Amino acid sequence: MRPELLELILGLLPDTHPRSEVQLLYEMMRDYPQRGGKGLRSELLLLSAQAHGARPGSEAWQRALWLGAVVELFQNWVLIHDDIEDDSEERRGRPALHRLHGLPLALNAGDALHAYMWAAVARAGVPGAVEEVLTMIHRTAEGQHIDLAWVAQQQWDLSEADYLEMVRLKTAYYTVTIPLRLGALAAGKEPSAEFTPAGEALGTAFQIRDDVLNLLDDAGSYGKEIGGDLLEGKRTLIVLHWLASAPPEQRERFLAQMARSRSDKDPTEIAEVLRWLRESGSIAYAQRYADEQGQRGLARLSAALGEGNEAATQMLRLAEGYVTRQA
Amino acid sequence: MRPELLELILGLLPDTHPRSEVQLLYEMMRDYPQRGGKGLRSELLLLSAQAHGARPGSEAWQRALWLGAVVELFQNWVLIHDDIEDDSEERRGRPALHRLHGLPLALNAGDALHAYMWAAVARAGVPGAVEEVLTMIHRTAEGQHIDLAWVAQQQWDLSEADYLEMVRLKTAYYTVTIPLRLGALAAGKEPSAEFTPAGEALGTAFQIRDDVLNLLDDAGSYGKEIGGDLLEGKRTLIVLHWLASAPPEQRERFLAQMARSRSDKDPTEIAEVLRWLRESGSIAYAQRYADEQGQRGLARLSAALGEGNEAATQMLRLAEGYVTRQA
Repeated sequence: MRPELLELILGLLPDTHPRSEVQLLYEMMRDYPQRGGKGLRSELLLLSAQAHGARPGSEAWQRALWLGAVVELFQNWVLIHDDIEDDSEERRGRPALHRLHGLPLALNAGDALHAYMWAAVARAGVPGAVEEVLTMIHRTAEGQHIDLAWVAQQQWDLSEADYLEMVRLKTAYYTVTIPLRLGALAAGKEPSAEFTPAGEALGTAFQIRDDVLNLLDDAGSYGKEIGGDLLEGKRTLIVLHWLASAPPEQRERFLAQMARSRSDKDPTEIAEVLRWLRESGSIAYAQRYADEQGQRGLARLSAALGEGNEAATQMLRLAEGYVTRQA
Repeated sequence: MRPELLELILGLLPDTHPRSEVQLLYEMMRDYPQRGGKGLRSELLLLSAQAHGARPGSEAWQRALWLGAVVELFQNWVLIHDDIEDDSEERRGRPALHRLHGLPLALNAGDALHAYMWAAVARAGVPGAVEEVLTMIHRTAEGQHIDLAWVAQQQWDLSEADYLEMVRLKTAYYTVTIPLRLGALAAGKEPSAEFTPAGEALGTAFQIRDDVLNLLDDAGSYGKEIGGDLLEGKRTLIVLHWLASAPPEQRERFLAQMARSRSDKDPTEIAEVLRWLRESGSIAYAQRYADEQGQRGLARLSAALGEGNEAATQMLRLAEGYVTRQA
C-alpha cells in the first residue's frame, strides 16, 4: 500500500508497553500490516475519492486516507481470523500469525486489531461511513460463513450459482463495492447505485482469479502455498466445474481426500488432483468466466464514472488488473 | 438481563435469511444472548444513567438502553471467542458455541456479533461513547492477552501483582469502569474520575469471586464446569497463593498436570489438586482479598455518587453483590 497509508496505520496502532506480554500483542497487531500487502482496496478507495473531486492534500483527502486505513485494517484483522479458520500455513510469504504464536493469542490479536479499525472510522469522521463499514463486515461474515459451512458439512453438491452467491458476499463488498462507496463519501458525494452491481462483477472476477492463481505452478509472488485451497477443502468455480464432468474414479478419490482433515490428506493424492484440475480445462473455464465478469464490471463502472477523469481512468486500469494479476 | 434489553438486542440482530447457511449464522449470533446471562454490566450502566439523572422513559434513558445493549453484545462476542481460546466446554449451562458448530463457524459468528455491537453504539448516538467502547476493548484484549500468554508460555513464576494487573485490564474495565462511565455519558454528564479506581477494585473483587466459584463444589447455578479453570490452566490468586507455600511434591504434580494440554490432563490428578486447594486455605485467602477490594471499591463509588440517590443506593447494592454472588 502507499507508504503514507502504512504510516497512518502504524501511527494509529500502539507501539510500546512496559509489560513484555502486552508488547507482544502490539507487535502481533503490527505484523500483518507490515508484510507488504498490495493495498488494492485502499488504492481503489483513494482513486474513487479523487474521481469524486477530493484533491490530494485537501481535508477530504485526509478523510479518504483514514477510510483507506479502515479497509486495510479490516483486511488485516480478517486475514488473521481467516488463517485460523482455514488453518492456513502462510500469509504473504511468511507463516500465518497463529502458526507463529498459537491460536489463542492470534485470535485475540485479530479482535484487538478489529477495534483499531473502528478507531480509524472515528478518526475519518465521514457521515455515512459507519453504515458502510457495518455493511462491509456483515456481508463478508455471511459469505465467509457460507464458505466455512460447506467445508464443515462436507458439502460438494453445489451449483455454480451457489459459489457465485458465496463470492458475491465474501469478496465483492469489501474488495470493490464498499471501497468505491467510501471514496465517494469521503469526497462528500453520494455513491452511484451502479457501484453495487459493478462491484459484484469485479469482486467475483477478483476472487476467481485468486482461485486460479492458487492452482498455477509458478505463482511465485502469490504469498500463499500453491494448492493451499485444495488442502483447505475450498469450493472454487474450478473444482465445481471439474466435478460436474470428472471421471467417477477421480471424483471418488477427490472426495475421499476432501473428507480428511488438512493434516490427514495424502500429499501424493493432492498432487494428483492438482494435475487432473490442470489438465481438465476447468482452470481455463474459470479464467474465461473471470474475464467476462471483469469486462461487465468495468463497463458498468466506466458508465457510472463518466469520461475524461484522470483518476477514473486510473481506477479502471487498477480494476482491469484484478483479472490478470499475477499475485 | 432486563427483558426490554434482550428485546432491543434481538431486534437489532438479523433474524431470517433465505439461504439456510446464513440462517444458521444468524441463529448462532442470537444463541449466547438468549442463554439468560445475568446482565450485571448493563444493569450497572442503567443504574449509573439513572443516578446521573436519566429518567426511565426519557430520551436519555433510550440512549442508555442502547449502550446497555452495547456492553451485553460486547460480553457475548467476547465469550464466544474466549471459549475458543480456552477451549471451554460449557457456557451458561450448555455446550460452548464452538463445541456445537466447530471452531471456524463460531469464530466467524463472534466477529459478526462484534460488528453488531458497533451498530448498537451508532444507534445510541451518545457523544464520547465510541472512545469509551474503544478503551473497553483495548484494555480487555490486553488483559486477555496476558492471561493467554501465561498459558501459552507455561509461566507459573508469577507474583500476586502480576495477577492483579492482568485482572485490572481483563475484567475491571468492561465489568465496572466503562459501564459506570457510559451510564453518566448517556445522561449527558461527565463521568467521575473516581469511577476508574472504584472500577478497578470492584472488578478485581468480581474476578476473584469468579475464580473462587469455579473451585467450590456446589456452585450449581454457576454455568461453567467446576474446576474448569484448572483444566484450562488459568492463573488465579488462589493458585498463586497456594503455589507459594505448597509442599514440593504437590507443587511438582500440579506443574506436571499444567504442562499438559486440556485433553491430556489426568482427571484423578486434577481432582487431587482441587482437594489440595480446598484444604489449603488459599480459597479463603482469595475470598478475603476480594472482600477487601470490594469494600474499598464501594467506599470510593459511594463517595463519588453522593448521598440520598435511590438509583445510587441500588447500584451500590448491586456492586456489593459482586463479591458474595453464588453464580
